[in-house]
Amino acid sequence: MPYFDAASSAPLHPVARQALQASLDEGWADPARLYREGRRARLLIDAAREAAAEAVGCRPDELVFTSSGTRSVHLGIAGALAGRRRVGRHLVVSAVEHSSVLHSAAALAADGGSVTEVAVDRTGAVTASAFAAALREDTALACLQSANHEVGTEQPVAEVAAACRAAGVPLLVDAAQSLAWGPVDAPWSLLTASAHKWGGPAGVGLLAVRKGVRFATQGPADERESGRSPGFENIPAIVAAAASLRAVRAEAAAESLRLRALVDRIRARVAGAVPDVEVVGDPVRRLPHLVTFSCLYVDGETLLHELDRAGFSVSSGSSCTSSTLTPSHVLKAMGVLSEGNVRVSLPVGTAEADVERFLEVLPAAVEGVRKQLGAPAAPAAGSGGRERLEGLEEPADLVVDALGKLCPIPVIELAKVIGDVPVGGVVTVLADDEAARLDIPAWCDMRSQEYLGAHPVGGGTAYRVRRSN
Amino acid sequence: MPYFDAASSAPLHPVARQALQASLDEGWADPARLYREGRRARLLIDAAREAAAEAVGCRPDELVFTSSGTRSVHLGIAGALAGRRRVGRHLVVSAVEHSSVLHSAAALAADGGSVTEVAVDRTGAVTASAFAAALREDTALACLQSANHEVGTEQPVAEVAAACRAAGVPLLVDAAQSLAWGPVDAPWSLLTASAHKWGGPAGVGLLAVRKGVRFATQGPADERESGRSPGFENIPAIVAAAASLRAVRAEAAAESLRLRALVDRIRARVAGAVPDVEVVGDPVRRLPHLVTFSCLYVDGETLLHELDRAGFSVSSGSSCTSSTLTPSHVLKAMGVLSEGNVRVSLPVGTAEADVERFLEVLPAAVEGVRKQLGAPAAPAAGSGGRERLEGLEEPADLVVDALGKLCPIPVIELAKVIGDVPVGGVVTVLADDEAARLDIPAWCDMRSQEYLGAHPVGGGTAYRVRRSN
Repeated sequence: MPYFDAASSAPLHPVARQALQASLDEGWADPARLYREGRRARLLIDAAREAAAEAVGCRPDELVFTSSGTRSVHLGIAGALAGRRRVGRHLVVSAVEHSSVLHSAAALAADGGSVTEVAVDRTGAVTASAFAAALREDTALACLQSANHEVGTEQPVAEVAAACRAAGVPLLVDAAQSLAWGPVDAPWSLLTASAHKWGGPAGVGLLAVRKGVRFATQGPADERESGRSPGFENIPAIVAAAASLRAVRAEAAAESLRLRALVDRIRARVAGAVPDVEVVGDPVRRLPHLVTFSCLYVDGETLLHELDRAGFSVSSGSSCTSSTLTPSHVLKAMGVLSEGNVRVSLPVGTAEADVERFLEVLPAAVEGVRKQLGAPAAPAAGSGGRERLEGLEEPADLVVDALGKLCPIPVIELAKVIGDVPVGGVVTVLADDEAARLDIPAWCDMRSQEYLGAHPVGGGTAYRVRRSN
Repeated sequence: MPYFDAASSAPLHPVARQALQASLDEGWADPARLYREGRRARLLIDAAREAAAEAVGCRPDELVFTSSGTRSVHLGIAGALAGRRRVGRHLVVSAVEHSSVLHSAAALAADGGSVTEVAVDRTGAVTASAFAAALREDTALACLQSANHEVGTEQPVAEVAAACRAAGVPLLVDAAQSLAWGPVDAPWSLLTASAHKWGGPAGVGLLAVRKGVRFATQGPADERESGRSPGFENIPAIVAAAASLRAVRAEAAAESLRLRALVDRIRARVAGAVPDVEVVGDPVRRLPHLVTFSCLYVDGETLLHELDRAGFSVSSGSSCTSSTLTPSHVLKAMGVLSEGNVRVSLPVGTAEADVERFLEVLPAAVEGVRKQLGAPAAPAAGSGGRERLEGLEEPADLVVDALGKLCPIPVIELAKVIGDVPVGGVVTVLADDEAARLDIPAWCDMRSQEYLGAHPVGGGTAYRVRRSN
């Protein structure tokens, strides 16, 4: 059963499993203790730190283990901000960071600090110049992911790091999605990562802080991990994390080429075989194993269920698949369609045949969902509608009430009636679903219709679209 | 090789190992995802929560998993304090809580809150009346461990919980040391625990918050674990933690009786076979598996090494075994001797023969360390000294300069010269080692000499002792 959601969590690597099992007998004691069980545990964690530091590209004494990637980010940002408190309380982040970064930023803002979110282009990348322009006299820290977790786009980390260095601002790089493939080749100040993303066990994050970076751990004191990561060390998991990082790195060069070709195939075939689809993210400067696309007139959750029934595990940034019923902040920041969104992220070792089968199954799955929703089968704004209208005395403007209807219904309703107004006429869609804010402009873009904007109305938002063709 | 430091970390229980290995295949995916791997992971964590909640004695929706006992305490105290911020910023803790509690208290104090530490008696227990007297109008939270981690003494949790309830103050019970033996039988508001203390894996803590307790999680937001414990869930470890808690509970009644008898034997035999020893903690109201004693004129670290060489792993609260070179805050709060301190905590399944061998080895090990240090062999204030002095014209007062000398040297120096002054004469010991503050009064107590007090002198402290016999 093919699992295509490695970006959420990768299946345990065989080396991680072996290392975990082997260290259960030696790694359970307190490494701070002087007796033999403690000394053995200390040897294990020291060796794991050496190995992980080598893979990260830092000194062992710059690296601590935390309990998760999220924890690494929370600790890293809070510590770096506090270390430069005297400089100021301004934080720069990209608009497409992982939620752990954005939630840290929100916590700073709630506490009286200020945050600048650097916008991204339609591929999901920041530009180094825009990032550099956001740095201020009072900027305590900047954060940029190495590559995006939802669309795979690589960020210009080296250029941004150079700009940060020139400005004297430390840069935290969230390398959660890329560390399996190689070290971050840039002069970062802090780096975070998460073991279960590369096939290590859950329960292990990495936090590296370069010597010389001002850092003041926040929260109650604790002696463990150089005072930077409170709580008893999870040594068997740490050993497994380090061992599996070495293992995936040993395979990285060949496997990244192989998966890159499979993702290229998915990008091309999805664009060709699925009508009304938007394949997003940078096609070249990207993670090797990840691709995301959105399907017009499709309910993401239903599509995920259909694919799950067909044996494929993928994830989605569509609003219907989130607990908050808002579309992915990444897709929003990119300004691309969010409905019917599918992220495919291939684990190491993915079989070509599974990818092929996915590509065979997908078009029918999308079509099935569209049929259930009564979506327009072909580009909706055909001449048929226009002709019909010409024979009638309908008002030039038309209002569609989609209040209370969830993604993708408002867009489907819009598509169904756009042909009912003459070219130059306006359709107003009333909707209260958050996804409409992203998907109606995205639909206009895909259909070459003119998006006139949105304004609040009682109980929702009115989106105005002028028919252009 | 007998390991007698279960209170630091217990060896992995066989059930924990089985459960961990069995769930590595099913528990690696993100339980928030909708596909089959995610659903399987969700089933595992839900079942583990049910089992752990039953063992704790709470509803499953009151319990979240964290990454460690320390993390549970940090999150629990911060959340409970924030939830009652409007009531006030006063925290009540016992003086012998785990460092995670005391460090949380220190963080509150550093942030402008106030903390009352409730003193303990010589057994290490608070009295419910003293604890109740510390509760104030502005008390946001009170914390009391179920039993002490260094000396095993049980706290009067039920009485304290009743007093807190009467005062409308939530009580957080740190049950890290006792949860293996049974639920906390008291109306607690919050409860914390740590899996590796009961033979579960590292990386799992429990935090229970009763419905109706005001709680506001601090730090950056995260959706996982009801928003109370950020970071990707470590499901295989959580499953192993819950399974092993059930397993140790199934054995608890019989095993606690057996270990209690072994500890009784250690208490009696150590007191009988080792000269100048103080066995501390409540002999009856105590954890079944734990006993602590201190040996006069002994360097704790050297004794631990000797016992380690003989095959026994124990821990110590002596200053020489701590990274900060201060004696255990627990022994300090109890006012008992800290030098030559040994904590024995027996893991489940400890063989009687190993305890017997420990009791055979210990007296010689203590004697060996004393010999190395040139400690007085027998009670020092013999009549011989007095007689010798009577023949001389020595000054009635005597000063011993032990500045720069570490525990137990200042006490040894005192013991060596006390016979050199006449009864009624005073010995002043100059020392800068922190342990002297605790151990010189404790020595006076053990030797029935009169402790006159301490005052600061250049570079250290002068301790004055009047010879009484």
